[in-house]
Amino acid sequence: MIKFQVPPLNKEMGIQVTNYIHTLTKPMGSLGKLELFAIKLAEMTGVPFPEVSPPGVIVFAADHGITQEGVSAFPQEVTVQMTANMANGGAAINVFSRQIDAKFKLVDVGVASDIVTEGIIHKKVRKGTANFLHEEAMTKEEAVQAISVGYEEAKSLIDEGIKCLIVGEVGIGNTTASSAVLTTLTNADPAEIVGRGTGISTEQHERKVDIVKQAVHNRQPDPRDALDILSKVGGLEMAAMAGAMLAAAERRVPILLDGFICTVSACIARLLAPASSDYMIVSHHSAEPGHTKAMNHLEKSPILQLNMRLGEGTGAAIAFPILESAVRMTAEMATFESANVTNKENDKVNVKG
Amino acid sequence: MIKFQVPPLNKEMGIQVTNYIHTLTKPMGSLGKLELFAIKLAEMTGVPFPEVSPPGVIVFAADHGITQEGVSAFPQEVTVQMTANMANGGAAINVFSRQIDAKFKLVDVGVASDIVTEGIIHKKVRKGTANFLHEEAMTKEEAVQAISVGYEEAKSLIDEGIKCLIVGEVGIGNTTASSAVLTTLTNADPAEIVGRGTGISTEQHERKVDIVKQAVHNRQPDPRDALDILSKVGGLEMAAMAGAMLAAAERRVPILLDGFICTVSACIARLLAPASSDYMIVSHHSAEPGHTKAMNHLEKSPILQLNMRLGEGTGAAIAFPILESAVRMTAEMATFESANVTNKENDKVNVKG
Repeated sequence: MIKFQVPPLNKEMGIQVTNYIHTLTKPMGSLGKLELFAIKLAEMTGVPFPEVSPPGVIVFAADHGITQEGVSAFPQEVTVQMTANMANGGAAINVFSRQIDAKFKLVDVGVASDIVTEGIIHKKVRKGTANFLHEEAMTKEEAVQAISVGYEEAKSLIDEGIKCLIVGEVGIGNTTASSAVLTTLTNADPAEIVGRGTGISTEQHERKVDIVKQAVHNRQPDPRDALDILSKVGGLEMAAMAGAMLAAAERRVPILLDGFICTVSACIARLLAPASSDYMIVSHHSAEPGHTKAMNHLEKSPILQLNMRLGEGTGAAIAFPILESAVRMTAEMATFESANVTNKENDKVNVKG
Repeated sequence: MIKFQVPPLNKEMGIQVTNYIHTLTKPMGSLGKLELFAIKLAEMTGVPFPEVSPPGVIVFAADHGITQEGVSAFPQEVTVQMTANMANGGAAINVFSRQIDAKFKLVDVGVASDIVTEGIIHKKVRKGTANFLHEEAMTKEEAVQAISVGYEEAKSLIDEGIKCLIVGEVGIGNTTASSAVLTTLTNADPAEIVGRGTGISTEQHERKVDIVKQAVHNRQPDPRDALDILSKVGGLEMAAMAGAMLAAAERRVPILLDGFICTVSACIARLLAPASSDYMIVSHHSAEPGHTKAMNHLEKSPILQLNMRLGEGTGAAIAFPILESAVRMTAEMATFESANVTNKENDKVNVKG
């Protein structure tokens, strides 16, 4: 069994920063959630004036054998095509990564065919998962291997100096695998979890619900065992995303979660190391219905609600500037004292050091 | 009477961009509201690939005679102090303006005392408004003059090349004046509009509600007449903010609205030129209760909900990167054709040119 060492949050630093925020030149509490983010980021990083820039974006590409059941609107070949598009800088996540000056990595952890385009890190664990309606998606060893790929890629970006981790994914069929994992974790009815993914019809949606239901029934994954879940109904990118998050949490690097697939992967990371979820902030509320359930399961609420459901890490990249605003607030705003501004009597806070 | 010439939206360009967005390498509609913003911005600017950077931020400072009635948690001297803090770059809006590389201007349109700090544009129309519980806040000539100040300052920033306008405000008592204006416009009960501003007690809040109610009753502003409202119960910064918005709308420059005071000023701008509101997007949902009513009156919904209520234009500055994301999406993403990605059969759209 793999072990991760996630340090506890620095609650003392959170209190110190809370008090400091009360001295800034603004009515108390008037920056709302920005203040909460600044406090959380201080607890995570353990420093009063944390940085979140540059952020790192890692996208993991993988295929899913379950696509054989006709659960997606797009054929499997689109995984390779979209991965190549991403390697060439034309996908949505490329655009938003450039906007936030992120260090960007694209990792093939399990695409079904070989990709020859430049700009892809080749760490293929296997050529897509098996069709988990009929057999296990992968072996436990492969799940561990995929977790390690994610862990190592995030670790190397952190070594390069990224201050906030965003993980994304590309791969036809990944909402089906995520639905199966979340069904396992929550024991909810798949009908409440399964969405339309890239845009399937009502009949295809009913079929997708049935397949998830049947697959979970057939495989019987143990909801307390991350490796059992990943190997039976998971995805290679989900394992890698969880691994990347664990590398970040171990190193006190804040993790900005994207939508459905990412948040389900975060639930897997939490199973592997419960304290890891302390280092996670959910960026946006995806239009995929399963995302609400995944956030509830992780006990998190989102920063944004823009009806997005693209994946790739796009929601996180778009929300990132709000975390940047939060850390700049504490780092750059004047205090009542430094700016010689009269404070409300009852808001005066005694802060030393 | 002053006249403004606001051009109609370019709906044809909106349709063209809608069709183009359908060709981008992502499931149809999967970027949610970003797609809507890209379409709106194309309609506003009349070009398919509009820019929103650099944005311009103008903060108007002014005082309010109504503070004599004890409606604020802070004394009036704080207006000068906060304006000086802002001139020195220490206020929240300075921090967020720097983050988005905005061109920043701070304009004294009616602070009660003189400010000697550098970095302030002196366009004082009068030394604060009169106490509108007992007399008119200003003359109609002064309201026109304040509108012109805002108009000219925005016009000069647009001439300098800003592509999106953000207007903010600083001034103790401005939520009381905004509440009186919105009560006039909507005929709602002030108890549903008046908030706690910079943070008053329950008794002070009851007093603030009563004062707004009494003032509107005493002054009887005509809800269809912007100049009548501004002169009777308005503020000099509100007039200037409306003027700035009108300069932007006339020039097809998108306006990103901030919270309560800004949105009420936008309602005034719309009274002066109905088409001006077509060029406005509301950035965030303020925690001030009147903001909800103001947005409903303007028939707009917000991008963000972060429980902020600071003013100064801060909510707009924080939401700005989302508009930037929207324009980068259309400008930089690959199409299914350019990237050789197989599209879903039913999503294929015929786009020429």
